[in-house]
Amino acid sequence: MKIPVGVLGATGIVGQQYVQRLINHPFFELSFLAASPESVGKTYAQAVEGRWHGHDACPKAIGALLVHGVDDIAIALRECRLVFSAVSADVAKIYEERYAEAGLAVMSNASYHRGTPDVPVLIPEVNADHLQMIRIQQKNRGWQRGFIVVKPNCSLQSYMIPLFPLHRQFHMKRLIVNTLQAVSGAGFPGVSSLTISDNVVPFIAGEEEKSEDEPLKILGVIQGEGIEHAKSPMIAAHCHRVPVIDGHLASVSVEFEKKPTREEILQIWSTFSCPYALPSSPDQLIVYRQESDRPQPRLDRMAGRGMAITVGRLRCCPVFDFRFTALSHNTIRGAAGGGILNAELLVSENFL
Amino acid sequence: MKIPVGVLGATGIVGQQYVQRLINHPFFELSFLAASPESVGKTYAQAVEGRWHGHDACPKAIGALLVHGVDDIAIALRECRLVFSAVSADVAKIYEERYAEAGLAVMSNASYHRGTPDVPVLIPEVNADHLQMIRIQQKNRGWQRGFIVVKPNCSLQSYMIPLFPLHRQFHMKRLIVNTLQAVSGAGFPGVSSLTISDNVVPFIAGEEEKSEDEPLKILGVIQGEGIEHAKSPMIAAHCHRVPVIDGHLASVSVEFEKKPTREEILQIWSTFSCPYALPSSPDQLIVYRQESDRPQPRLDRMAGRGMAITVGRLRCCPVFDFRFTALSHNTIRGAAGGGILNAELLVSENFL
Amino acid sequence: MKIPVGVLGATGIVGQQYVQRLINHPFFELSFLAASPESVGKTYAQAVEGRWHGHDACPKAIGALLVHGVDDIAIALRECRLVFSAVSADVAKIYEERYAEAGLAVMSNASYHRGTPDVPVLIPEVNADHLQMIRIQQKNRGWQRGFIVVKPNCSLQSYMIPLFPLHRQFHMKRLIVNTLQAVSGAGFPGVSSLTISDNVVPFIAGEEEKSEDEPLKILGVIQGEGIEHAKSPMIAAHCHRVPVIDGHLASVSVEFEKKPTREEILQIWSTFSCPYALPSSPDQLIVYRQESDRPQPRLDRMAGRGMAITVGRLRCCPVFDFRFTALSHNTIRGAAGGGILNAELLVSENFL
Amino acid sequence: MKIPVGVLGATGIVGQQYVQRLINHPFFELSFLAASPESVGKTYAQAVEGRWHGHDACPKAIGALLVHGVDDIAIALRECRLVFSAVSADVAKIYEERYAEAGLAVMSNASYHRGTPDVPVLIPEVNADHLQMIRIQQKNRGWQRGFIVVKPNCSLQSYMIPLFPLHRQFHMKRLIVNTLQAVSGAGFPGVSSLTISDNVVPFIAGEEEKSEDEPLKILGVIQGEGIEHAKSPMIAAHCHRVPVIDGHLASVSVEFEKKPTREEILQIWSTFSCPYALPSSPDQLIVYRQESDRPQPRLDRMAGRGMAITVGRLRCCPVFDFRFTALSHNTIRGAAGGGILNAELLVSENFL
Repeated sequence: MKIPVGVLGATGIVGQQYVQRLINHPFFELSFLAASPESVGKTYAQAVEGRWHGHDACPKAIGALLVHGVDDIAIALRECRLVFSAVSADVAKIYEERYAEAGLAVMSNASYHRGTPDVPVLIPEVNADHLQMIRIQQKNRGWQRGFIVVKPNCSLQSYMIPLFPLHRQFHMKRLIVNTLQAVSGAGFPGVSSLTISDNVVPFIAGEEEKSEDEPLKILGVIQGEGIEHAKSPMIAAHCHRVPVIDGHLASVSVEFEKKPTREEILQIWSTFSCPYALPSSPDQLIVYRQESDRPQPRLDRMAGRGMAITVGRLRCCPVFDFRFTALSHNTIRGAAGGGILNAELLVSENFL
Repeated sequence: MKIPVGVLGATGIVGQQYVQRLINHPFFELSFLAASPESVGKTYAQAVEGRWHGHDACPKAIGALLVHGVDDIAIALRECRLVFSAVSADVAKIYEERYAEAGLAVMSNASYHRGTPDVPVLIPEVNADHLQMIRIQQKNRGWQRGFIVVKPNCSLQSYMIPLFPLHRQFHMKRLIVNTLQAVSGAGFPGVSSLTISDNVVPFIAGEEEKSEDEPLKILGVIQGEGIEHAKSPMIAAHCHRVPVIDGHLASVSVEFEKKPTREEILQIWSTFSCPYALPSSPDQLIVYRQESDRPQPRLDRMAGRGMAITVGRLRCCPVFDFRFTALSHNTIRGAAGGGILNAELLVSENFL
Repeated sequence: MKIPVGVLGATGIVGQQYVQRLINHPFFELSFLAASPESVGKTYAQAVEGRWHGHDACPKAIGALLVHGVDDIAIALRECRLVFSAVSADVAKIYEERYAEAGLAVMSNASYHRGTPDVPVLIPEVNADHLQMIRIQQKNRGWQRGFIVVKPNCSLQSYMIPLFPLHRQFHMKRLIVNTLQAVSGAGFPGVSSLTISDNVVPFIAGEEEKSEDEPLKILGVIQGEGIEHAKSPMIAAHCHRVPVIDGHLASVSVEFEKKPTREEILQIWSTFSCPYALPSSPDQLIVYRQESDRPQPRLDRMAGRGMAITVGRLRCCPVFDFRFTALSHNTIRGAAGGGILNAELLVSENFL
Repeated sequence: MKIPVGVLGATGIVGQQYVQRLINHPFFELSFLAASPESVGKTYAQAVEGRWHGHDACPKAIGALLVHGVDDIAIALRECRLVFSAVSADVAKIYEERYAEAGLAVMSNASYHRGTPDVPVLIPEVNADHLQMIRIQQKNRGWQRGFIVVKPNCSLQSYMIPLFPLHRQFHMKRLIVNTLQAVSGAGFPGVSSLTISDNVVPFIAGEEEKSEDEPLKILGVIQGEGIEHAKSPMIAAHCHRVPVIDGHLASVSVEFEKKPTREEILQIWSTFSCPYALPSSPDQLIVYRQESDRPQPRLDRMAGRGMAITVGRLRCCPVFDFRFTALSHNTIRGAAGGGILNAELLVSENFL
């Protein structure tokens, strides 16, 4: 028996990614779709007409589903056990707690609850131990079955996953990261072609703050009723928008308490993997490319069907200890794929 | 009386920029053009047919000039007093010293002599005092009238010019810089459209080494027969190629011995200017943009007719002291415009 | 004494082009700006903050002007004699006649009145004789001083201007044109980067209809109270959106009643010019490029400061008589520059 | 038992496509690779290092194959039965006949033999009857087992396949086609990013001639010792290079002897299919999109794993009878995929 799930914000770019990736999923069955008022009452096929981003047509069975409003919580409760929330932060603010209160599990892509102390920001390969917060959260809120977990900002998956196993062993002190982020990260229509053609924009609203703050929560420890941010490393992020469709790239300089060797790092990366056997987890989590000019977004974003992290150019840093470049697919690993991976972890650990 | 000058490598992208910028120059008269064997014997118009990059047609008088070989040094000597060298490093290696030995001033864009201790790497606004090396160089080599000066790599103008007046006062200790560089920096045909469309390449051969080494020579001091590199700051550069036609952008995190205030920095930038009155020097050397999302290559590269540096996003750095983003036009300030500025300085200081 | 003018829709991409091109105009003084409700009451500088498309900053004097509402017709009447209308078709529908009725000359970029029989669709080089419609229009409507003239769609300038002098002499029978249109034609934000990156869209809503209908009105004759469309040529247009910032390109196959020679065509193009001495008129109206691969949008769009038409590849057509490719700058000649040229014609012919 | 095959020009962009598509092919086993002198003696993995265009790494078994010279015909003869030729026209001119003479079947992508009267230009769905030319060709040349077949230029697959079944029934009289072609059509490095960024080039050397001539040979009839070109339709082609990575788009206006209805055309397209059951043949040969803005290269090029033709916008043409837009993947259907389809046809019809 598959677990029935829903998608909030199902017509947006991330919502559509959820829909596509839930087709024939071994654990989940898509049974509830919600979107903004202009789509309510239409079939999903009608609602996404002219803005469907999939290469293949939307399957008939999904296209025939009726689109509900985000406020149709009673229907959601009847139709599914978990909702993937791909709505904007202000909609998340209003509704995500209501869904959880009503008894639904909420796996959210929105930024709103990432700062909430009793909501875990999950990357299964990094901080699955934060799942314990779910029981504390339910106790804090008086919720029986429902709860909220969130995934982090798309910009940081590319560097947090390779840095985590190094941090565990050598403790990062300082980290300066520059991201070159794809336009799909801004949704659709998102970035105007007039803005980004033959151009780079060295600013993405809120992105540097998230890139500097969220890693510390992910590396934090459960303390009483919430997660306490880690004290280190110090992080500085410069975030740029570049004319690339998909794939966020990050160039990193990092300093450790105890400096590893290059060989130790490569050894750790080659064997680091998800500690749980989850369907969306790639065979090789960190793909290290030996070529001097990789990773590149167009060539590497689909590694591990969009769920792997591609890393390259590991070399000494004249200022810190090491530097390297990392890449992840922002609308797969960084959005819907990462959200589904979290939900698979919830199944695996019996939270659903 | 204008000073007759020549261009070596006149048909390439930088050579063409020289040609365009020397038309109606107040100090110089273009009278000698040299290029690779397949262009020799053609008129300049014939030699650049089908690969002229100027928006306006090449002026008739220039187009009618005959293209010589780079080895036609005797002709160069008869026709001009200074040559701008826009040839590749391996051609520079063979010929630049021969031109100087023959009695010509050589202002080179090639990387070959940037590491030569008695050849100054000049930015007029930063290290005009290194002009003294010319006399020492002539003495070292036994040259009478000829000499070689070079300009630095195009990647570093954007950040070295704003950092220099800060360094003078507050002494940089550590610097991590990420560059996002335009395709024109690789010449023509240079970067294939198949390489860079919908993509970023996190590597440019030799570029990081130049970006880390040349600033220390520029900040160095004359010691005996050569320039001794400065000991500090420590510099780490990550260089990326991005799908932008013109304009190199750099995002910088910097730490000082003595931390300035944000106001001090802005004040220094607003008044920093070229200490010499040179025709190519822009009215406002450093253009600071208040908007949160500037500088941007397409919007800002032509500031000061391509000779100004546009800076923005000055803010505290959680790891070092400050961070900011800077931009310069790589084929103007970073190539031909910068070379001509150096030549203007040579005139102004009576070296021609 | 300059003639005071205003711009309706002053904050959009075409409105901004008007503002920039009216600075220091020899005939006109910008004295009234109107835009949509969210800009009303702000200074122009405030209203365009973060979306100013000019390379140079907006001049202080213009930036300090207060933005009015499009319905502030009484203020417009007090402040100016002519308004350039760069509003959308639905706003044009409501307001343009009210401005004319109030006594203002309206030069409109909107499509709404292009089909109105007593409103001339003007290209000064082609159908200045349609200016006579202004008196008929005023009589039809009972307007004293006010009137409406419009400019045609941006897609057709590139081919109608070179075809007109041929048509006059050899009579076009059939015309098949394919346009490759720049994203700026859709305004800002207009075309999403996700839509057009690594892509072409073979459809632009309403564009083919305009490209097939408007030329016939431009070539039409005044008949009683309106302009009667020309009966020929038959025109088929395929319109494509391509990832180009500025510059609409058109490839044309054309059949004439009487087939000219290639030499006759080139001769006609080389001498065809605006019959009036207007400030915005380029020295060479049709720039014919001999190279096999021109015109190209990025290289040729600024010919004649954006007001010339660049043509190339004139050759025999195996199906019709001749074929060629033509290019014009869509936001200059095709929008604000073309509108100002029309207004200059109105001055020259004493309609203002 | 699979048939052993080779690839000439195996390191180029089309050669690599052949290599990728021959992995696990049901009919063929890749056993011979030839390339230009600088690759000879290297393993294939070494030869394509730094310019491998596949998303997945080249399989180990293929990467370990030694690269031979194009002149190693004796080795080719020992190792395989058919060679796919992806070399340039001038190399094809020298070697393809030698391979055939030696006893090998040659399926060529090069343009050189497309004009040779006894060499068929094959599209299996259109003119499989031209296979008969193979026996005539062998007789003409005195060849026993070897022969040459070629595939047509990549530009014309998109419109010839949808037009063929209409032509069969309604006879085309006149055809004007405008192509918007991807940069991968020029190979690697091919089109410089400086040429095509923010630009369109309305010219591709030789492409219009091929687009106008080859369809008439494909529609021709066997007459004596060669294929006689069809007399009609008259064809005019305008070919443009656009900033798209993969996918050639064509907008077509067509006139028939007998005008079909729109419904007849759609009906014919929905059922038109390859008359042979070939592994590379897509389930739906012509995919008709109802949306007003399709086909689009990025969204539709992979239809039918790159082997289908996507068509849209069928509508009346004011000058001819109908017009529509069609798209095919130029390096799959238009190159290696199309070549393999031809080879599959040779197997199916017992020529191998």
